[in-house]
This record gives sequence, structure tokens and C-alpha cells, in this order.
Amino acid sequence: MEKWKEALTTFIPKQQIFTELADRYSYSFDGSFGEFLPDAVVQVKTKGEVIHLLKVANRYRVPVTPRGQGTCLSGGPLPVKGGIVLDMSQWPATIEVIPDDLIAVVSPSVLTAEINKAAEEHGLMYPPDPSSAHVSTIGGNLAENSGGPRGLKYGVTKDYVIGLELVTPEGEVINTGGRTIKNVTGYDLTKIIVGSEGTLGVITRATLKLVPKPLAVQTLMAVFNDVEQAGKAISKTLTSGIVPSKMEFMDQACTIAVENYKPSGLPVDAAAVLIIELDGHPSAIQEEAEAIEHIMVELGAVNIKVPKDEEEAANIWHARKQVSPAIAKIKPTKVSEDATVPRSKIPAMIERLEEIKEKYQVELVVFGHIGDGNLHPNILCDKRDNEEMERVELAVGEIFQAAIDLGGTLSGEHGIGTMKAPFMEQELGEVGLEMTKRMKDSWDPNGIMNPNKIFPEKGQKLVLRNE
Amino acid sequence: MEKWKEALTTFIPKQQIFTELADRYSYSFDGSFGEFLPDAVVQVKTKGEVIHLLKVANRYRVPVTPRGQGTCLSGGPLPVKGGIVLDMSQWPATIEVIPDDLIAVVSPSVLTAEINKAAEEHGLMYPPDPSSAHVSTIGGNLAENSGGPRGLKYGVTKDYVIGLELVTPEGEVINTGGRTIKNVTGYDLTKIIVGSEGTLGVITRATLKLVPKPLAVQTLMAVFNDVEQAGKAISKTLTSGIVPSKMEFMDQACTIAVENYKPSGLPVDAAAVLIIELDGHPSAIQEEAEAIEHIMVELGAVNIKVPKDEEEAANIWHARKQVSPAIAKIKPTKVSEDATVPRSKIPAMIERLEEIKEKYQVELVVFGHIGDGNLHPNILCDKRDNEEMERVELAVGEIFQAAIDLGGTLSGEHGIGTMKAPFMEQELGEVGLEMTKRMKDSWDPNGIMNPNKIFPEKGQKLVLRNE
Repeated sequence: MEKWKEALTTFIPKQQIFTELADRYSYSFDGSFGEFLPDAVVQVKTKGEVIHLLKVANRYRVPVTPRGQGTCLSGGPLPVKGGIVLDMSQWPATIEVIPDDLIAVVSPSVLTAEINKAAEEHGLMYPPDPSSAHVSTIGGNLAENSGGPRGLKYGVTKDYVIGLELVTPEGEVINTGGRTIKNVTGYDLTKIIVGSEGTLGVITRATLKLVPKPLAVQTLMAVFNDVEQAGKAISKTLTSGIVPSKMEFMDQACTIAVENYKPSGLPVDAAAVLIIELDGHPSAIQEEAEAIEHIMVELGAVNIKVPKDEEEAANIWHARKQVSPAIAKIKPTKVSEDATVPRSKIPAMIERLEEIKEKYQVELVVFGHIGDGNLHPNILCDKRDNEEMERVELAVGEIFQAAIDLGGTLSGEHGIGTMKAPFMEQELGEVGLEMTKRMKDSWDPNGIMNPNKIFPEKGQKLVLRNE
Repeated sequence: MEKWKEALTTFIPKQQIFTELADRYSYSFDGSFGEFLPDAVVQVKTKGEVIHLLKVANRYRVPVTPRGQGTCLSGGPLPVKGGIVLDMSQWPATIEVIPDDLIAVVSPSVLTAEINKAAEEHGLMYPPDPSSAHVSTIGGNLAENSGGPRGLKYGVTKDYVIGLELVTPEGEVINTGGRTIKNVTGYDLTKIIVGSEGTLGVITRATLKLVPKPLAVQTLMAVFNDVEQAGKAISKTLTSGIVPSKMEFMDQACTIAVENYKPSGLPVDAAAVLIIELDGHPSAIQEEAEAIEHIMVELGAVNIKVPKDEEEAANIWHARKQVSPAIAKIKPTKVSEDATVPRSKIPAMIERLEEIKEKYQVELVVFGHIGDGNLHPNILCDKRDNEEMERVELAVGEIFQAAIDLGGTLSGEHGIGTMKAPFMEQELGEVGLEMTKRMKDSWDPNGIMNPNKIFPEKGQKLVLRNE
């Protein structure tokens, strides 16, 4: 047995260390693309175990890739360089809500939706709502800085993290931030750790900010026969002084896919469907709903559906959640992106995506959190078809270029991971990337934490083909 | 002439470089404590000049201390190690509001209040509102991550910065973040630069997030004969599901000081005054105002004033703004702190401050943004009195210890600078401070950017006496 594996067992119970091929295989993939076999999987349950593991890994220069439930869409939990997958999912799940301070203190293995459920018992809300909230852990959300539909009004995971306990790559423990909303004591380590995709250490506890649960919620669905008109209606709404809590878009391919997968009453003839949610004081949202209806009709909506009760509203949101699984049925491979543009550039981005689809003859469908410019163009393909995948690679590269050209960014909420790393320099520039790397190297001098994520290797290109 | 001064003149016009004693003296102090003479003052007006200056300073190892309008309360712009004061105040002030994207792009020399004024022309708001907003620059606000009364509902400067242009300590230019609300492309360099007090480079442009201006605003003033009762009323309000936009506290010493300075009709007999502001939809804030009145009366408020028009409300807020200048008249020296505690610990902190005042027999007055736990205990003293200043030093140390004991932090919005550096390890721990320092060193290997701020020297203690 290799020395580092032996060294692990001096503190971590053997039944938490897995080296059989079958076990390692289960940890070789995530919700994105590619398979990479780790040398070992270690399930940790205490801070002491994480400290021990990182000290051993650092001594023996073994790569460590932390993992929650593996739902990541950008390759965060993929053990690209082998080594150890650090499985956090078996850590005891604890949520302590402190309503007087409007905070919750959580362990990394907690499922995100459970935090919101615990907050609701106190009339509070944890706003970030990634579509995977029922299956993904807060640890994974912290690593990737996950978003979700409510990002439009409430922001993303980072905006709700005020304190962290972290084990550094060298196995030391630090506490960042605290329990106060205002804190300017030293550098904001909390916000650089959130979204660093496990490259700066392992988060073992988080303090999250909660907000009072809105008094009322109202959903609206608007149907358009023309995508451009829908784009204009979105812009007009967002500059009207109203901030919806959610504003989602589906193109025709998505509505057809959902109706084929789980019929939900979506209008399959329409070119575009917008689903909007307002929250707040009942009088306020009633006025706002009327104003939005007016805008939608004025800009060409052919139908507006206002659900008459919570159940009808829930059905509409359920249909929206089916988009991702439904389109995954169309072809064997789904390449999912989350390039994001400034709000005013949403119509231009939709146009660029249409051009890319034509140019490369790829099956590109579009849905997503359109209100904050965070679209999800998905390309449906077959990874066994090398000729098709070559076109997909080119199309993905051009999607990123379009987002950057329009003043946007490679990723709004899924993270960089492996797939977007080759495009980092395009957005950050050589010096920007170098300064980021300096921070990484200063914390992880031996480069053991989640190697090959975020930072591209020299000359690295996006490869979706098996060569 | 020293070589570095000569090197500056090869690119920066001579009339922007000041080396006379009288000029240097004007830049030797800020709004905090202590005087430090720089070797030169350089007024820069372009990015090219900043690049040149930093390249020269880095080559010759000359300390550089950036400065806006010098209103800082924690020593940020003090040239503690001499060298160059980089005066940003003469940079052309530019504000570009892009209403469709809900953002503003600003130059560092812009006065903060001007940003909000420009936003208002488009029905928008820039929420951060430090009391100095009419005289302080956004560059200074970015360096210190300034707060203000609206922090309670809206957060601080950092929460509104989505992109920066920065000249690194080695004179390279990077662009962080961008123009989108969602952005998870690489580490969040933006949020580590904001609040880093000029130790990581010089900000030359910022992209700020704006929000729709609230439809209505309502002020309330509640008067208490007992500080503890006021504390309980605050807690009850904050856990009622209402989030006021502002919630300010003044103790009796403050109201008396204001009435002696500029009579404003404050109740000088009262032990505590709370000033609350609600904003949002008119129906919502009317209900909320009634609920708060009810809570205040229930918990012992002896009087509640609801201003009948905007002018009356403005008068109340004007009185609040007079606290700082008014108490400064009481004694020659004002030592101003901004220790912050979790909301539920506000009454406990008020009690600890009372004990500290008694124990060290110091003239301690308390006001501040009590709704987010961000109090401003101020000690009024005379720096020429060494015996008194020794007691003040001990009292300040104990204020910080009390905040940390209660789960709070050294600074909520003023920054660490020179005065709080000796207490950093108490809050961050040895490893936390070391990890912060590693980031600093990785960006500024020669340690030229604003030395002796945030990071304490070995064995550094708070000294307020002239020895």
C-alpha cells in the first residue's frame, strides 16, 4: 500500500477509506462531462479527519478533490489528477437557526433546501435556490457560488455567507468573517473562498444570512410568438422599477421537450414563454403584477396566465424544473452552459445564440434565468459522434466569445471547473489570471487542492471528443 | 533629488508633484489619530500616471499611500512609513449611469453622494450612505468598504461593487468582475480588493450596482427613559419580520451635545433616542410603521414622533448627522470606534460599554447604526493628558475584547488602518492573519502598498500617547 494511504489510516477509520475499483468508479464523474478515476475515496465526518487528511496529502503531494453530492455542472468534483476524493456527504447534517441574529449555522453536508425549510419555521428565508437544491449540499453550493432563479432579486450564495470555518491546504483551521452583517476586519476571505471551487481548502462550517420570508408571492406566465418581442418585454419590465424575484425564459424546443417528457400544459406552439414571480407586500405585488401584465401585452404577449391559487403556481414552476431532465432525453449528451450578459444585452445574446446554432448546425436550446442575463444555452448531441462533437466544441467556444463580446462572463452560477478553464484568459486577461493564481499558490504551495480546476494548463483547449 | 523623485518626473507633470514641507504637511493626517509626514505628494489624473508611479515606487521600494479626501476614521490615508501620498482627488470625476443594466461606472475621485444623485435622475438609488458621503470619495469608500445607516437593509459598499479596474502594486492593470450581477468566473478578486485599504493596488474605475429607488419613505423617532428598554424594543422590531432601511441610536450624552451645538429639538431628558426609517411600497411601510409604533410603546417608549412631512423628517436626520461634529466640541480629542456585534447582543454590548466607562472613568458616548449591531462608542478626551490617554487606551482595548467576546468584530465600517491593527490577531487568530498576509505578499512582494495598515508589526500595541 502506498505510504499516504497508510498514513491516512492512523487517524481515519478504515471503513471510511475506499480503494476498490467499484467504489472509486462511483466517484469518477459528476453532473458535467468526463470521467476521472481517483486513487482513493475518503468519507470524512469530523474536522479532525479533514485536518489529518490534508496534512497527509500535503506531505505526500496527493491531489485532494472535495465532493458533496456530485451534482456539479462544471466538473468541480472531478478528480482530474487522481488522488483522493474527499466525500463530505456523510458528515453529520446540522442546521442551527438563530432567529434573533437572522442567521443559520450549517454543516457542509446539509442539503440546501433543508436550510430554507428550517428558516421557514421561524418566518425566515434562505434565498439562494439552485434547481438542484433538494439534492445538492450547501458545501457544493459554497464551492461553486451557486445561483438559481431568485438570483434576480436576491443574489447568489455568496451574498448570504458571512462566516466560514475552513481547513487550509496545509491542514490548519481558520475562521473567516463572523456573525455580523457588517464586518471590515481585514481582507474578505469569506468571499474569495466562496466560489473558489475547493481550490483554497475545505469548508467545514458556514454562517449564512437569512431574510424575513416575504408576506406574499405571485406568479405570472406570458406567452410570445416571437422571441425578439419577449426580449423587449423583459428589458421593459426590468427598467420599470419593478424587481421580480424570478424571471425565467424557455424557448420552443424546451416547452416541446417538457410536454413530451411530462405534460404540464405548456403552450408548445409559442416561440417563447416567460415565467415571472413577484414577492413582497400583497398590495405592492398586486400593483406590480398589473404593471407587468400591461407591459407584456403592450409588447406582444399573445396570452398571459395568472394562476388562481398556490397549486396552479406550483404546477407552472414544476414545469420549469422539468426542462433540464426533459431536454436530456432528446439526445445522449447534453452540454450545458451558463454564460451571462448584462441585462440590456439579453436580446442581442439570444440573437447570437441563434446564429451559432445555424452556423454549426447544432441542436441548441435555450432556457434560464433571463432576468439577470444568466441564460442556459444547452447543446444536445452524442459524444460518440466525433464529427458532431467537433462542431459542438466550436459552438461552445463561440458562445463564450459572444458573452464576453457583449460585456458578459463565462459563468453566472455553475463555475469554471474543467470545461471553462481554457477560456479564462479570454475574460480575465493574462495578468488577471496570473494574479488569481498567485493567491492560489500562496495558500496551497504544493498545489494539492482540486488541481486543474479554474486555472488552465498551458495551451489547454476544450475537448469534448474521445481522441 | 532622490532618484525615485526624478524618475517620477519622466512621465508625471512636475506641477502634480509636491515636495515642499507645507504641502507634505497637509497630507500628514486624516480623520483619525496621528500625524505622519510623506516624502512627496503626487496628484494623479490618469491611469498611465498611476502605472508609472507604481512601477517607479516598486523599483525603488518607496511606500505608496493612496488618498481620496482624507475623511478616513481608521488611518487608511496616513503615510505611516513616509514615501508617496498618491492623491486621487484631482482625477476627473466621471459618473456614467446605464439604467438598462442597473449599473453606474464611476471614476475613483467622485464624491459618493454624487453617485446617488446621478442614479436618482433615472429613478434609481446607490444605497451605501456613509455619513461623510458629501465629502468623501467613492475611491475611499471602496478602500474601506464604507457602510452607513442604510446598511441595515441594503448592506455596505462591497455589496454594490461588481467590477473594478485596478493597477497592481507592480504597475500592471487588471479588470475584475464585470457588468453582470451573476459572475462566478474565477476568484472574486473584486470583493477582496474592496475593503483592503489600498494594500493591494490602486482602484482606477468601479462598476456599481444600482437598485430602483423606493416608492416611499417614512421616518419615526422613539424616545426612551431607559437604555435597556430601548435595546429590547430594537430586538423585538428586528425579529418581527420588518427590515427598516435605517435604525439609529443616540444616548443622552449625544442628544445633549447636539442640542448644545445646533439646537434641533431632540429630547435632552431622555436616556435614549431611536430614529427609524422605513422604505418601500406606501401600503407596506404604513403597516410597518404602525407595527413598530406598537412595539415601541409596548416596550416603554415615552414618546413617538412621526414627522408629518419630508421637511420634518429631514430635520430629524439632520440632527442625527450633527452627533459627530457636536461631540467633537466637548473635548479636544475624539477616539471613535465602530465595533460591531450580532443583533441579539446589542443590549449586552450597551451594558459592557457602560461598565467600561465606569471602570476607566472615561467620557464615553454611544450612538450609531444600532439595527445592524454597528455601534459607534466614542471616547472624548485630551491627547495632551498622558494619564487620561492611558485610561483611554485600556478602555479601547476592552471595547474590542467585548465585541469579540460577544461574537462580533473590531470594525463594522471604518476599517482597521493603524489603530485596530494591534487587535487583529485577537479576532483572526495567528493562522487567519498569516493567510491574509500571504495574499498581500503574493500581490505586493516588495510591500510598497500602504504599509503598516491592517497587518500589525511584531508586538505592536495601541498607543494614543505622545511618548
